[in-house]
Amino acid sequence: MSALPEVKALVFDVFGTVVDWRNGIARDARTFLARHGRGDIDPHRFADAWRKRYQPAMEEVRSGRRPFTRLDVLHRENLDVVLQDFGVSAAGIKADELDWLNRAWHRLDPWPDTIPGLIRLKAKHFIAPLSNGNILLLANMAKRAGMPWDAILGAEAAQAYKPQPEAYLRTCDILGLKPAQVALVAAHNGDLAAARKSGLSTAFVLRPNEHGADQATDTKAEQDWGAIATSFEDLADKLGC
Amino acid sequence: MSALPEVKALVFDVFGTVVDWRNGIARDARTFLARHGRGDIDPHRFADAWRKRYQPAMEEVRSGRRPFTRLDVLHRENLDVVLQDFGVSAAGIKADELDWLNRAWHRLDPWPDTIPGLIRLKAKHFIAPLSNGNILLLANMAKRAGMPWDAILGAEAAQAYKPQPEAYLRTCDILGLKPAQVALVAAHNGDLAAARKSGLSTAFVLRPNEHGADQATDTKAEQDWGAIATSFEDLADKLGC
Repeated sequence: MSALPEVKALVFDVFGTVVDWRNGIARDARTFLARHGRGDIDPHRFADAWRKRYQPAMEEVRSGRRPFTRLDVLHRENLDVVLQDFGVSAAGIKADELDWLNRAWHRLDPWPDTIPGLIRLKAKHFIAPLSNGNILLLANMAKRAGMPWDAILGAEAAQAYKPQPEAYLRTCDILGLKPAQVALVAAHNGDLAAARKSGLSTAFVLRPNEHGADQATDTKAEQDWGAIATSFEDLADKLGC
Repeated sequence: MSALPEVKALVFDVFGTVVDWRNGIARDARTFLARHGRGDIDPHRFADAWRKRYQPAMEEVRSGRRPFTRLDVLHRENLDVVLQDFGVSAAGIKADELDWLNRAWHRLDPWPDTIPGLIRLKAKHFIAPLSNGNILLLANMAKRAGMPWDAILGAEAAQAYKPQPEAYLRTCDILGLKPAQVALVAAHNGDLAAARKSGLSTAFVLRPNEHGADQATDTKAEQDWGAIATSFEDLADKLGC
């Protein structure tokens, strides 16, 4: 008996679950920092610092203090602050180069099992990202890496950032499905807990190196998620794809 | 020299331009009408009657008399009226069967040149529908027919129906491009005229049989559109793809 037999659509967390954001950001940050005479800065520390400003920036939107603003804009604002924190003066750097680094989020690589797993999952399910990334970010990432999404969903389509219930429920509404017919696939227990609270089905995929070798969070499934897998290919096995 | 050298993204009208809606709707209407004892009704006349209610239904939204409502809902409401007009009592028909017929709009076939043309155009451009169809309708259509869209854009993402300027301009905004860097590809001069008014680039593709053998409208390019082609493959030639 396959897991999640009632599920018609799989929607995916992206940063960490589908792609390795930390090494991807570090790769392009290394190039950028070397070009601007700051090869001394650890690019993984830079990536971590940039990512650390992700949740607080979205919280401004979730709290209603700021109207919905797409992630490319939040990333760009955060980049200015992170550069300043590392003592890099952005004043002498061309806007084009800053925009290039900001678009590093569009150029993240999938984990090795991502594409072969998605191809199998797509044969039986509707598949789409349900990410806080904006449509262009996710579509450029998919085009570059060959991710076979059926549609690009997520925060911009729902006009709400996870873990707000609207992000999950409006996505189900766009899909014309009941929440139980939609499973969130994520490497993050918190994201899955919020999806479950809104009635969605859930699938956990372990990504033990998202935060590097010493990862301390999300090292295991913390609830009895509908499916628990070690890769997208393992998930395809468990879902009978 | 290729046409439209400044264009990065191609966005496509769908009903009539990408797919043959009239024969697709007639095919499933024929099955439905025969099953309910009304094989006497001409399924192409039925398709035309259903399509005729498309613009007035969207006009309720465009005028502000009704909040944005996705096309699946408008199609379903229009279906009830069309059935009544043809003297078919919907009372004895199960909701599932009516929903199946309504989803005929998700099952339309591409013109023979559509997929080979899109594959070539996609190699050089970002490609997405800019249709009044809702996301699910367009994504199901793409999944069934193998349309290689980079994202599903259009009325639901923009929350506005063509030919309102917001439908075109919000699509450019989602794409992070200036209007001139985005070309609307359409078989309809009116759609292209509205896109041009908003500053978008334009490409006309002739679809002489959209409305059947006696088609009287859109039989030629009525302005000097940025590119003028007889098929998606001809468009790929003209754009140097």
